[in-house]
Amino acid sequence: MNKSPDATRRSDRSRRAILDAALALVGEVGYNKLTIEAIAARAGVGKQTIYRWWPSKAAVLLDASLALAGDAETDGGWTGFPDTGDLAADLKTVMRATVDEFADEKYAAPARALTAAGATDPELGARFTERLLEPQLALYEARLRTARDAGLLAADADLRLVVEMLVGPLTYRWLLRTGPLTHAFADALVDGVLAGLSGVGKVTESR
Amino acid sequence: MNKSPDATRRSDRSRRAILDAALALVGEVGYNKLTIEAIAARAGVGKQTIYRWWPSKAAVLLDASLALAGDAETDGGWTGFPDTGDLAADLKTVMRATVDEFADEKYAAPARALTAAGATDPELGARFTERLLEPQLALYEARLRTARDAGLLAADADLRLVVEMLVGPLTYRWLLRTGPLTHAFADALVDGVLAGLSGVGKVTESR
Repeated sequence: MNKSPDATRRSDRSRRAILDAALALVGEVGYNKLTIEAIAARAGVGKQTIYRWWPSKAAVLLDASLALAGDAETDGGWTGFPDTGDLAADLKTVMRATVDEFADEKYAAPARALTAAGATDPELGARFTERLLEPQLALYEARLRTARDAGLLAADADLRLVVEMLVGPLTYRWLLRTGPLTHAFADALVDGVLAGLSGVGKVTESR
Repeated sequence: MNKSPDATRRSDRSRRAILDAALALVGEVGYNKLTIEAIAARAGVGKQTIYRWWPSKAAVLLDASLALAGDAETDGGWTGFPDTGDLAADLKTVMRATVDEFADEKYAAPARALTAAGATDPELGARFTERLLEPQLALYEARLRTARDAGLLAADADLRLVVEMLVGPLTYRWLLRTGPLTHAFADALVDGVLAGLSGVGKVTESR
């Protein structure tokens, strides 16, 4: 049964209202107290409308985060990875922006919630990693590949390892609050990782 | 009012039974489905006994994990950080052991659960980080300090940053399942981080 154009438009509008409500609420009450009921009430739809499209609040939040990431791109947040020719500067630009996002509850609350939910729910975790995380890691990897092709990194440098050496400590400090998450930390991290790479492929050499 | 020796002994036994039950159950049913009721039933105590000592299942699990960490030490898991004089080898020994622990649901299930719960509950997260995580990070830092004092690292190397460069990517890959968590990954990570440190203090030099 095909929907009429009006029904499709109403449906899109409801969907967007639900995602917006989920994002707003997770920032206000936190993930643990977030309920499908509250999302439905805020979005002005019935609970059944939500359950028709999503099996759980975590699933709503994953789609909401994907929509938010899409919006950030459209708003010119960043559509790709900067490439000024200066690898350290480009990595610092991106990682400082991530530090800023982690400090902004609009982004941080749903990301925290999904990371937490995914950690104890392998299926959700796999979807979160595949749909939200991997595309970001791929952008880092592409930028590092350009640097490697330009001879700035060893030809056999393990790019995926390098990406996780950059993103891992940042995410760790954010999630576990082991210290202040600052631009200075992001900069030091980039310098620390690149110090091991700018030489003669020490990362892979000693394995 | 002082307890009699018998009451104290009973109380210790109940406490231990509750912690054991919490660890067993979180491995069996996962954190999301873990309830105080089920812990009480498994431990053979009343719900009120648990609520008298702990405010939430997360609090029970934190104490259970601390007890588990204590047991691992008593069993000779490791009481300190190895110091053979070979920094890379010592770091690999410890990080391979962590990889093995993360692959063992007995350790991994409560650790995942606490990390997840702490991510969305700042107060619990702070206690988890302070009581369970920081003591481990301090052991890494002490081992790195010995290496720095021996002139193997730059005198001004930021040891805390180095610790998080090691532990961060390992925890990240474990929590977010971005790739296989293997001994080879631990080894490559240690080599990658040390490559940047064995030189002339590049970590701090370029900040």
